[in-house]
Amino acid sequence: MRAAVMREGRLIVDTVADPTPGPGEVLVKTLACGICSSDLHALKFAPQLAESARESGMPFQLDVTRDVVMGHEFCAEIVDFGADTQRTLKTGTRVVSMPLAVGASGVHGVGYSNDYPGGYGELMRLSELFLLPVPNGLTTDHAALTEPMAVGVHAVAKSRFEPGDAPLVVGCGPVGLAVIAALRLRGAEPIVAADFSPVRRALAARVGAHVVVDPAETKPIDAWQAAAGARPAVIFECVGVPGLLHEVMRDAPREARVVVAGVCMEDDRIRPMIGINKELSLQFVLGYTPIEFADTLGHIAEGRIEVAPLVTGRVGVDGVPGAFEELGRPDAHAKILVEPWR
Amino acid sequence: MRAAVMREGRLIVDTVADPTPGPGEVLVKTLACGICSSDLHALKFAPQLAESARESGMPFQLDVTRDVVMGHEFCAEIVDFGADTQRTLKTGTRVVSMPLAVGASGVHGVGYSNDYPGGYGELMRLSELFLLPVPNGLTTDHAALTEPMAVGVHAVAKSRFEPGDAPLVVGCGPVGLAVIAALRLRGAEPIVAADFSPVRRALAARVGAHVVVDPAETKPIDAWQAAAGARPAVIFECVGVPGLLHEVMRDAPREARVVVAGVCMEDDRIRPMIGINKELSLQFVLGYTPIEFADTLGHIAEGRIEVAPLVTGRVGVDGVPGAFEELGRPDAHAKILVEPWR
Repeated sequence: MRAAVMREGRLIVDTVADPTPGPGEVLVKTLACGICSSDLHALKFAPQLAESARESGMPFQLDVTRDVVMGHEFCAEIVDFGADTQRTLKTGTRVVSMPLAVGASGVHGVGYSNDYPGGYGELMRLSELFLLPVPNGLTTDHAALTEPMAVGVHAVAKSRFEPGDAPLVVGCGPVGLAVIAALRLRGAEPIVAADFSPVRRALAARVGAHVVVDPAETKPIDAWQAAAGARPAVIFECVGVPGLLHEVMRDAPREARVVVAGVCMEDDRIRPMIGINKELSLQFVLGYTPIEFADTLGHIAEGRIEVAPLVTGRVGVDGVPGAFEELGRPDAHAKILVEPWR
Repeated sequence: MRAAVMREGRLIVDTVADPTPGPGEVLVKTLACGICSSDLHALKFAPQLAESARESGMPFQLDVTRDVVMGHEFCAEIVDFGADTQRTLKTGTRVVSMPLAVGASGVHGVGYSNDYPGGYGELMRLSELFLLPVPNGLTTDHAALTEPMAVGVHAVAKSRFEPGDAPLVVGCGPVGLAVIAALRLRGAEPIVAADFSPVRRALAARVGAHVVVDPAETKPIDAWQAAAGARPAVIFECVGVPGLLHEVMRDAPREARVVVAGVCMEDDRIRPMIGINKELSLQFVLGYTPIEFADTLGHIAEGRIEVAPLVTGRVGVDGVPGAFEELGRPDAHAKILVEPWR
């Protein structure tokens, strides 16, 4: 199949072997797959990614010296079945799935594996167990946004968000936008958000932020203070560059809950005394639960989470390396979808 | 009065002006005052302490270029009253108090202020509002331990501790010992604790730890795993040296709640990806609430918190500089009490 392949730290378009579904697995055709910032990070920091997964005792196996086809935000169509499958969903059914496969050789991250290619290629093998059919009437594009929006739903759940809490979302890339949408779903008000990019600020307002500021003009915490006053602060760090966590801690009000949703691949420096003096909490978050993933699909299908504004570009497999370049300049895009069949 | 004074980064015994109680304040004679590791830190890092308080927006005013009489873990006796006092408690009453004074000039930390000397001097001025009488039968020594033990009660409360949670206490200095006692009060079992010092390990067992290990021989997390298995981990970091938070995060099981009770005055380096991969939470803690402070006094008076083993030394004012030296070598001591009247 044709695929965009991570090879020796670069992204190459090539023809690679078709995946073969094992026991309990299905073969699917990728209909659409969002490009995630994590993949940009992974390309830049592949060895650190593998090392930190190992260090954290994660079950994934990833050899970055071998080919990896990334892409974990997909909507796909069932093409064929492996052995020992239930086949409740028929060939041709559109499906989404958590990007997780449980095979005889252990747990694999689809799109972060040497053996389970992701959605930047034409075909994938997925665990039948995790397949969710796309509800009637929901477009493939919107279904493909289930994964990134579930990240927001999960981050808000992990924040122990309660009525009356006042959120501040720092960074309105795809993660920040997903958090805003999930906060809106919870009825949070006011939702204050900040991003340097005018495109992203406009999107933040579209998906539900009440107050959106440019940090170059207004300090985000000042905008939050003006809107929220003395209410409990829940700050979502959705950028993930070194130094930002320190800034968030320095500016946070007393007893703020900080949710670290931005993926910072490098070591970072904090000042513990600031955390201590203000009794801050930091909750690091990753992914979502299976129930959150399924719920998010339902929220999108029912229009409770607004995703229409998020797709800002489309490419075929050949366009993936260029799209990675584009996304390095955050001014222009939220989500670019890869459509390998194009 | 005679007092041990922090002056130009050193601890000097000198005669200084007696404090004068302002409106709403009482003059007290210090009966006993514990030496806190925070004071050792403060002596070493005075400018950073003032800077971090300022940076965190704390209301305290502290000029480290002027004299400071430290000491915030005290039991005292009422000697005289300022203007506008209720005088419900009579002269001669033994009292404890949160080390906080609210005067016309704002909020002051008793023992971390130029105007509110702490218990390393013979006399203090305290807010009448915060005085708690020492219950009949409770010794002055044990009453003076209210403050450090309240720190443990608060840390456990902030950990959102629930039945079934399995705690690991890293470091068995006074903070770690207070956490162990507070965990015991909650009925936690097993309580696993670790310290390099045999004296402190023995104290940890005395105040309630079920499993106590020497990190030089057994990795604390391995001892925890053997005792707690797959139960939810709540890890109390009670040391506060750079690098330890990273180690705790690296070794923590998935979804562990880490309570940062050790006071690290320096910048520290963490690896956010480890926090993200394991969805850790870090809760920084400081002090206690007024209710926790009063409850702790009650727990000590009723014998529900065991404090008898903690006092390992006594000195007069002249002995304070030497005691600071002693406490720099953590092998020998838990709590040294200053008795300025000696």
